[in-house]
Order: sequence, then structure tokens, then C-alpha cells
Amino acid sequence: MAKDLQTVVQQFRSYTRRMKDYSEAIAVLGWDLRTGAPKKGQGQRSEVIGSLSTELFKMGVSAEMKEFIDSLSETGAYEQLDEVTRALVRECKKEYERSHSIPSDLYQEYVVLTSKSETAWEEARHNNDFANFQTYLEKIVDYTKRFIEIWGYQEHPYNTLLDQYEPGITVAILDPLFADLRAQSVALLQAIQERGRKTDTSFFGQRFPIDDQRRFSEHVLKKIGYDFEAGRLDVSAHPFATGLNPGDVRITTRFQEDDFRFAIFSTIHEGGHAIYEQNIGKELVGTILSEGASMGIHESQSRFMENMIGRSFGFWTYFYDDLRNMFPAQFADVSIDQFYRAVNQVEPSLIRTEADELTYNLHIMVRYELEKALIGGDLQVADLPGAWNDKMKEYLGVVPQTDSDGVLQDVHWSFGAFGYFPSYSLGNIYAAQFEAALRRDMPDYKEAIQRGEFSAVKSWLNDKIHKYGRLLEPKDILASVTGESIDARYLVNYLQSKYTEVYDL
Amino acid sequence: MAKDLQTVVQQFRSYTRRMKDYSEAIAVLGWDLRTGAPKKGQGQRSEVIGSLSTELFKMGVSAEMKEFIDSLSETGAYEQLDEVTRALVRECKKEYERSHSIPSDLYQEYVVLTSKSETAWEEARHNNDFANFQTYLEKIVDYTKRFIEIWGYQEHPYNTLLDQYEPGITVAILDPLFADLRAQSVALLQAIQERGRKTDTSFFGQRFPIDDQRRFSEHVLKKIGYDFEAGRLDVSAHPFATGLNPGDVRITTRFQEDDFRFAIFSTIHEGGHAIYEQNIGKELVGTILSEGASMGIHESQSRFMENMIGRSFGFWTYFYDDLRNMFPAQFADVSIDQFYRAVNQVEPSLIRTEADELTYNLHIMVRYELEKALIGGDLQVADLPGAWNDKMKEYLGVVPQTDSDGVLQDVHWSFGAFGYFPSYSLGNIYAAQFEAALRRDMPDYKEAIQRGEFSAVKSWLNDKIHKYGRLLEPKDILASVTGESIDARYLVNYLQSKYTEVYDL
Repeated sequence: MAKDLQTVVQQFRSYTRRMKDYSEAIAVLGWDLRTGAPKKGQGQRSEVIGSLSTELFKMGVSAEMKEFIDSLSETGAYEQLDEVTRALVRECKKEYERSHSIPSDLYQEYVVLTSKSETAWEEARHNNDFANFQTYLEKIVDYTKRFIEIWGYQEHPYNTLLDQYEPGITVAILDPLFADLRAQSVALLQAIQERGRKTDTSFFGQRFPIDDQRRFSEHVLKKIGYDFEAGRLDVSAHPFATGLNPGDVRITTRFQEDDFRFAIFSTIHEGGHAIYEQNIGKELVGTILSEGASMGIHESQSRFMENMIGRSFGFWTYFYDDLRNMFPAQFADVSIDQFYRAVNQVEPSLIRTEADELTYNLHIMVRYELEKALIGGDLQVADLPGAWNDKMKEYLGVVPQTDSDGVLQDVHWSFGAFGYFPSYSLGNIYAAQFEAALRRDMPDYKEAIQRGEFSAVKSWLNDKIHKYGRLLEPKDILASVTGESIDARYLVNYLQSKYTEVYDL
Repeated sequence: MAKDLQTVVQQFRSYTRRMKDYSEAIAVLGWDLRTGAPKKGQGQRSEVIGSLSTELFKMGVSAEMKEFIDSLSETGAYEQLDEVTRALVRECKKEYERSHSIPSDLYQEYVVLTSKSETAWEEARHNNDFANFQTYLEKIVDYTKRFIEIWGYQEHPYNTLLDQYEPGITVAILDPLFADLRAQSVALLQAIQERGRKTDTSFFGQRFPIDDQRRFSEHVLKKIGYDFEAGRLDVSAHPFATGLNPGDVRITTRFQEDDFRFAIFSTIHEGGHAIYEQNIGKELVGTILSEGASMGIHESQSRFMENMIGRSFGFWTYFYDDLRNMFPAQFADVSIDQFYRAVNQVEPSLIRTEADELTYNLHIMVRYELEKALIGGDLQVADLPGAWNDKMKEYLGVVPQTDSDGVLQDVHWSFGAFGYFPSYSLGNIYAAQFEAALRRDMPDYKEAIQRGEFSAVKSWLNDKIHKYGRLLEPKDILASVTGESIDARYLVNYLQSKYTEVYDL
């Protein structure tokens, strides 16, 4: 490599390292704000986060950044770069092109709008008053459309939004994928409902002391491979995982004394996210590639851990003695079979975040269809509540009585995150594809889980997925692990086989 | 104010506001590191702190900063500035002049040296091996002398170090001040020792469950005016207070199950620091003036709270019922009188951080004399252990058996903090001056404390000292509160009067 090029690479690496430092600082400030920062300091704290975020944004669209990208993308230069630097150039270029084209005053207006809009949404949901949120949402949709015009798009304007969260995914891919998954899910749901078998879940509603729940959650986390020397478990209103660096990936949960399920499954879910980030390759630490490949790949790791491992019969066969030792009275009369069926109960419901594994994707499809129509100009914001209820009836067979339990339930739209929801179902689809590959590579992995041996599965995930961080794009990870492209068939098979067993279909 | 000047002021205010944002971020990262950040992420975290600190340093010595300072210091401009902006210019100018003159490679060498040296000190203390720390300390002294040459100094080279921590304080002020305080302290100590009255403190060594200690500490903190909606209490190896912003000022302590004293008095001490920062004036929030006026003024607030309030008879008269309710068995046979004498026991000892209120200042004077001699060229690092032991014998009448309990006990020198130690005694001196002023303004304040009424004292401190933050310089605060300049007589009077009572002299 020529001396000049070497120097540019060094400068670029150190420039982007500084960006990563800012990201980590912002993430710590955010974690702190959500886990116990005192109330009266939060206004000033938001200013600090805003200030650092602005600096980080400026670094991504600076003239210096443009020079780095231009000189490192040149033919003759790019070919000589190592794999990590290439990926850094790829990511920086993408971010630069998306961000620098938006006039800064337009962007500033949008930031102000979305921050107000989130408060408006909270109030509207609280008061079941869509009309008061409608004007905000209309403006957000307008701004989003203007951004899309500036960015440009291919085939469908929604594609450019999808690309933010899941590079390579388009409406042309999603439409048939989701149509297929929906048809099969609805058919399976119908079969379950026709079977008419009732599941008893009442024992989850007893009193479960929080300290015991915490100890049990920690026990499970350790067993599945979460490293407490590189993380910690705290409490927040909404559970989340945050990867500050691979040596510090934190989880939060919320303990409900009167429902055993919430904390344990949210902990396993966030544990899946966290184990991903704890095991990103050492050569990526301190680079902006030290994060998940995409929202969908990230979600595949949490869903795999929560559902395919954490709701499996083998998993609970292993943990059931520990659970009964911790909560002897609560589970005295509950057999492992009853317990297993109870954590896998299927029941169409109104709220996405409380949905079971089967109907969850139908909630996502409702949102996907509505977003696509809004952005494509086929639906007006004013018509959204009605359209929501129609879709819910069509896909899930239930209709909310209030907008609070319907169109107002999610925070995402209030900050303009259109294109985000599909990632959740993509995560489920990827997870099933990965699970099939795991079964191929380790046919006896379920027996290992049942014996409480999690390390082989974890190593497989580390080696096939985690270590790459954001070095590879989602489709490349999928191809390298499974040899295939995205395919909902594996998820359908998984769901059919699981519920055939759970419900004796 | 001319339009141009207004614009410069606005830009300067927003520039320094950004500096404050960085400071707050760095402080949160530091708090996090010391209160529970997972081990494996700490290396990367230190990089992040280093990265933000470098940015902050650069902002303080940038060409932009120089332009601000130059144009706002001009005659005709400075006079038009409001009080806050003037103080900002004053502080920025001071920092600029100190920092920009050090060649950046020299400074970089020094940063690397001190970071290695801290580790070397830890090892040396652990192994009682001064020789292995000596070479580091010699280099640190050398660098410090070079910096002093660059900065320049008046009268004594040590003055420029003092000025970093306590603006306005010089060797010419400290020498007679400390000589007087030492003579009187030694005389008082002698009187106490001749009195020969033994204090029973054995009851502090029983078992005090940590949860109870925590609840008691929180109870006391609330009572004395610490606002838990603008702060929190956590655990760390060494107690500290950190003011992120006045709405978020955090305290840490360490609970020792087998000694009741440590946590409660460290909590009250840090509480004093924290109440200061929680009550800095609103117009200073978000500026770099939103901190204590100096190390010494800060320490005056913690010492006042810990010693003059927290070790007073009235204080414990009020809290003794609560204490006995919390720990009935432990204090069953201990009268309030015994308790009061026990928390005010005087006993010359080897370790500064464990010293009582009277002998503490003698520890400081040992360090002051040695630092002054080192920096003045009258003492070589190699001769430090011997000089230390001689001074300890002379001032306190005790001699350490090992350097670990002697010259190696404090971390300060290992990171080059020469000039810092005097602040501790200045804090005690200021505190006694403030206490005399408080007694003049509120002659019945001790009775109020004895009734558990802390709010009048707190309001007085808020109004006379806290609200000014760093707006005023230490000597101006002292003058405005007491009408006098620094004077050790008040501390001497306070100590004489207290120990005459405690020891029936």
C-alpha cells in the first residue's frame, strides 16, 4: 500500500474511532437516563445528549468525511483496503449520502417536530384521542415523503425507509414473503382455534417476590452464556439491551410481582441481543462496525433465544427443578407439560408487545401494510384508525374498542420510524432459518439444551453470526450461514411443528 | 451593547456551553466506571473518556477560544458584559493561559507518565517498596518544574500550583496561617493527651447490617437537605460526590458491616459537597461556572456538614432515637454522651483519611512542607521517606513502620497533584469562618439542629455560598460572607471550645 494511502487509512480509522467513542458516550448517557438518573437533572441531560449527537452527526457529513470516502473509494485504492476498512467506508458512505443531502434547517425542523410529537402521542394514547395526534402524524408523514424525494428511491418510496433498518430488503421482497407467512399463520391459528383446547395460565398470576425473580433471571442469563463480567442487569420501564462496547453490554428488565412471565422472557430476549454484542470480533472493537448487522439480524438473535430456545420443552425440562426450588408453592401442582403449554399459549389479542409467537407477525403485517399505503399515498392519516381496525379484523379476527388499544399503541410512528416494524418479523424469519442451519450442523442441539449445555449453541452463534458485527450485510450473513436467501418457509415449518405438538393438532 | 459584541457573546456562550456538555458527559462516564461498570469494558471506556477529554482540552486552547477571549477582554467590551459572561471570560482566560503554553508533545508525555505512575504507585504501596515508585515520582517532579518554568511564577514556584486549586492562595499566606494553626493544634493535642481521658469506641465495631446502614444514611441525608430527586446514593470503593448538573448530583459511600462510622460520616461529608452543587444558581446551569468556587470552598462545605454539624452534640441529640430504633441492640448500653465523645475521639494516627478533626490538619501540613521543599528544590525525592517520618514525628508524634503507612499512603502525587493537599485544611479554616458568620446571623442555629430543623441553615448556606457556584472567587465569597480575609483563628477557637467540652479540659 502506498505511503499516502496508508496515511489516509490511519486518519480515517482514527476519525471513525472518535465517532464510535461519541456513540459509546451517548449510549451510556441514554442508559443512565433510563435506569435511574434523578428526575430533576433530565432536562439538562437531554441537552448534553443532543450536543454530543449533533457533533457525531456533523462528523458523519463533514467535508473531511467526504474526502476520506472519495479517496478511499477510488479504483486502485479500495481494492487495497483490508476487509474492516472497506466495511467502514461502505457504512460511512451510506450514512453520508443519506444525511448530507437533507438541508440542515429542514432536518432541524423535523427534529423539533418529532420531539414534540412523542409527547403528543403519549397524551393522545392516554386520553384515547387520535385527533390530537393526527396533525403531528400528518406532518411527520409529509416530512418523510420530502426526505424520500431528496434521497430518491427505486420502485417504491417505502424501499428507502426499509433500507435504513434492513439493507437490501424491499417491498418486492416483503410482499410475497409476508403474504405467504400470513396465509400459513392464519391457517394455523384457525386450526388451533378449531381444536378448542384451553390452556391454564392462571398460576402465572400468583405472587412472585421480585428478589427471587431477579435471582432466577440471573441464573438463566448466566446459563445461556450472558457474561456478567461484560454486562449488568438493571430495571427500566421498558426492557432494552445496549451494547456500549463488547466488554460492556447491559440488559434491563421490569419485574412484575403478579406475573412471572414478563421479566423472565424479556430477560431471555434481551439476553439474546446482548450475547450477540458481547461476542463481536475483537478486531471490530472501537470501530463503528462493533454493532449488530441490522435490526432484523439483531432481532433474530433475541427471538431465537426467547422463543426457539427459551420456550422450548428441553429448556424448561432443564430449568424446571431450579424454578420449583425458587417458587415451590407457586408451581407445586403444575406439571412441566402444563408449564410448557402455558408459555406457548396462542391467543389473538390487541397489543403487539403482548402477542404470542404465532400471532405476533400478524400484528407486524398490519403495520407494514398501513405504512406502505401511507408513504405510497394510498392512505390518509385521517383514515388510519379505521384502516387499522379493518386490518386487525382481517388478520387477527379482533377489533380494538379504543384507539389507545389500536392505532395509538406503538411509539414508533411518533418519532417517524417508518420502515422499522418489518424488522421484527424479519428477525423471526431469519431466526428460523438459522435454527434450521443449526439443526443441520448440530443435529443433537436440543438434547444438549435439555442437559443444560448451552455453550455449543452459543459458540455456533458466535462463530457464524456474532463475530462479524456489522462487517457483513444481512444477506451475506444469511447466505454464509444457510446457503440461502430469505425464506419464510422455515418459520412456517417451525411454527407448524411446534403448535402441532403443543395443541395436539 | 453593539450588535457585533452581542453576536460574539452569544457564540462564546454557546461554545462554552458545549464545553460544559462535554464535562457532564465525562463526569457521567466516570461515575459509571466507579459505581458498577462491568470489568471487561473498562479499557475501552477509558479510551472514550480520553477521547472526550482531549476534545474538551482542545476547545479550551483553540484559536476560536483565543479570539473569544481577546475580543471580550478588550476595554470597551468587557465593561459591557453581564456578570456571568465576565466570569466565564475570566475562567476561560485563566485556563487558556495555563494550558496553551505547554507544548502538546510535552503534555502528552506527561499524561502517559502519570497514567503509568499511578499503577506503579499502587504496586509500590502494596509491596511497601518506595524505590520502585521513586523513579516515577522524580520524573513527575521534573515535569512539574518544567511546567512551572513555562507558566512563570511570582515569589515561590509552588504558588503557581496552589493557584490551580485555590486561586489567590500563596506560600506567603499559607506559611503563617499553617504555623499558627499547627502551634495551637499541637498544644491542644498535648492538653488532651495529658488529660488522659480514655474514650470507649468499641461499640462501633459490632455488626451493622448494610441495608439498615443504608436506610439510616438516606434518612440523615434527606434531613440535612440533600434532594434525592436531584441525586442518588450508590456504592464505590472510595466515596465521592459528583455534580453532573445541579439537578443531578450523586453521592457514593462504602458500607462496612463491622464499623458503623465509616459510611455515615462519609455520607454526611459527601452530602455537604452535594448540597453545595444542588443549589448552584439557575442562571449558571449549563455554564462552566456551574461548579464549586474552588477545592477549598468545596471542602469547607463537606467539612462543615461532616464535623461542625455531623459531629455536634445537637445533631446526635436529634438523631439518637432514630439511630437506636434502627440498631437497638448495638446502642442499648450507650448513652448519648458516650456516643458523642466516641465520634469526637482524638488520637494521633498514621493515616490521613482516618484522622480525627484535630490531627487531620497536621497530616496536611506534613504534606505541604514536603511538597514545597520538593518543588522549591530543597528536598530530593530520594530523601522523601526519611523527611516524611521526621515530619510525622515532629507534628504528630507518631512514626510509620512502613512506607505504605507513610509516604506511600496517598494517591495524589502519583498523578502529579502537587498543591492539592492544602485545600483540605483551607476547607476546615473556611468552614470555621463560615460557622462563626452563621452564628452571628442565626445565634440559635444549634438549637434548630437539635430540634431537627435543618432548613434555615441550609438556606443560609445556599444564599451566602452555594448559589454563586464559580461566579465569585474564593476570597470574594469569604469577604462577602464574613467581612474578613482568611484567618485560622476561628478554626482554633472552634477546636479549643469543642475539645474542652469533649475532654473536660
